[in-house]
Amino acid sequence: MRVSLLGLGLIGGSWGLALQAIEPTWHLRGWDRDPRAVATALARGAIAEAAASPEAAADADLVLIATPVRAMRELLSAIAPHLPRGALVTDVASTKAQVVAWARERLPAHAYFLGGHPMAGSEHTGCAHADPSLFRGAVYCLTPDADTPDTAVSLLEDLLARMGALPRRMTPAFHDEAVASVSHLPFLLSAALVAQTTADPQWETKREMAATGFRDMTRLAAGDPTMYRDICLTNAAPIRDQLLTASRLLADLAGRLDDPGELEAFFRAAQAERRAWARTFEERAKP
Amino acid sequence: MRVSLLGLGLIGGSWGLALQAIEPTWHLRGWDRDPRAVATALARGAIAEAAASPEAAADADLVLIATPVRAMRELLSAIAPHLPRGALVTDVASTKAQVVAWARERLPAHAYFLGGHPMAGSEHTGCAHADPSLFRGAVYCLTPDADTPDTAVSLLEDLLARMGALPRRMTPAFHDEAVASVSHLPFLLSAALVAQTTADPQWETKREMAATGFRDMTRLAAGDPTMYRDICLTNAAPIRDQLLTASRLLADLAGRLDDPGELEAFFRAAQAERRAWARTFEERAKP
Repeated sequence: MRVSLLGLGLIGGSWGLALQAIEPTWHLRGWDRDPRAVATALARGAIAEAAASPEAAADADLVLIATPVRAMRELLSAIAPHLPRGALVTDVASTKAQVVAWARERLPAHAYFLGGHPMAGSEHTGCAHADPSLFRGAVYCLTPDADTPDTAVSLLEDLLARMGALPRRMTPAFHDEAVASVSHLPFLLSAALVAQTTADPQWETKREMAATGFRDMTRLAAGDPTMYRDICLTNAAPIRDQLLTASRLLADLAGRLDDPGELEAFFRAAQAERRAWARTFEERAKP
Repeated sequence: MRVSLLGLGLIGGSWGLALQAIEPTWHLRGWDRDPRAVATALARGAIAEAAASPEAAADADLVLIATPVRAMRELLSAIAPHLPRGALVTDVASTKAQVVAWARERLPAHAYFLGGHPMAGSEHTGCAHADPSLFRGAVYCLTPDADTPDTAVSLLEDLLARMGALPRRMTPAFHDEAVASVSHLPFLLSAALVAQTTADPQWETKREMAATGFRDMTRLAAGDPTMYRDICLTNAAPIRDQLLTASRLLADLAGRLDDPGELEAFFRAAQAERRAWARTFEERAKP
């Protein structure tokens, strides 16, 4: 099998290392806009050969696009004319409906697209931090549409499972709605918390009273602004719903601050649900 | 000096250990509603002697109340008749205006109250986890009012500084407004996030897509429901303001999801502010 990795950051590099570990005979080529990322990927063994351009990398059985989502439209157009018959193209972008629509528009009928999204990451970025075990225990969403042959889905599911990931099939729309709730809303609450607290005219005095709770709740706000901008732009409708629901929930809570019974029941339910979720999350993350 | 600790959980126990380390000749007595906490405090050396009741512990130069805030009103009344002339009473509750008002109502004119609140904690609770270095690098708020003699404030400031804490004087009202913003709002956002995501009819499918970002943003929601209920009840007005501001901010953000420039600027500012805060926080936490 000939595999091409377009984009050699943390995810692309980790994919290469994980694939090399389970399929050492497959040939991995890679391309990145940044020549230093290519050099790192070669040095770390995440790829065996550098491709001069996305076009030059398109002649492969499996193409993984692991670039920022805003680069994907152009990349899909660039590789389209060079994809061989039966080629499978997959990606790792955080939103899926928009990406799947772009692929349907741009790829030839003889190649297939299968959207992917690993629910894994790290606070570190770049190929230097690539890790073959990055996907271990992580849910890996796959969003086939009616045009994706079942054999292609099975092939990728099998590879991912052998990398230690937990592949899950779902529609692009379900995926986007789910991540708006469990991933994008948390980021937006984190950014909003920073915006609100730091806009306070007395922030300079209050800032040193913020401690570990504030630290945990604002960690996501330090994430890449352009990545989150693109997430919002490509998943606007589900995110809008989540934000408006949260807005109503907080206003509602503001009206219930004098009711001990209701407050305790609300906090107790949140505690129980959080504990139940954390148990299954930690269980899954075990090696 | 004779010191009494009322409440021997994580904070009371850590206070005892930290005080014993800097003033080994002072005599520490302690009381807790739970006899097991008293036994642990004795075994760990957080206190030297057990008191049979709060009343029996009141004959001391310095009394630290480190119980849940809801127990404080009754405790203040219980110790009031037994406090010697010039006794200093302090506490560690998360809200201050209400507690200071209770103390003014209940304590005799010959004793002094000085509200305190260490911005330190741990996910662990109980005297078994008490740690003499818990306050090291942590801001420790002190809220003197017009009745608190300056010598009493200086005495406590000196002790706290020698425990490694960073004592800060402020009014009870300023304290409560600040913690509503940097501490209570983060908890409420965390609890609201859990409530909103788990109320989703498809939560059972979506839950496994939640990953490390969700974990960070929901950690606070696992906190003690009765403690947070009492925080809301004793700090309702500042918390209400914070919740309503957050509610408006999220609704406003929902209306700007199609503006790439505004989104990026908003996220970029949040990233910069969070990084700036984290630098000073980590600097302070260094040993």
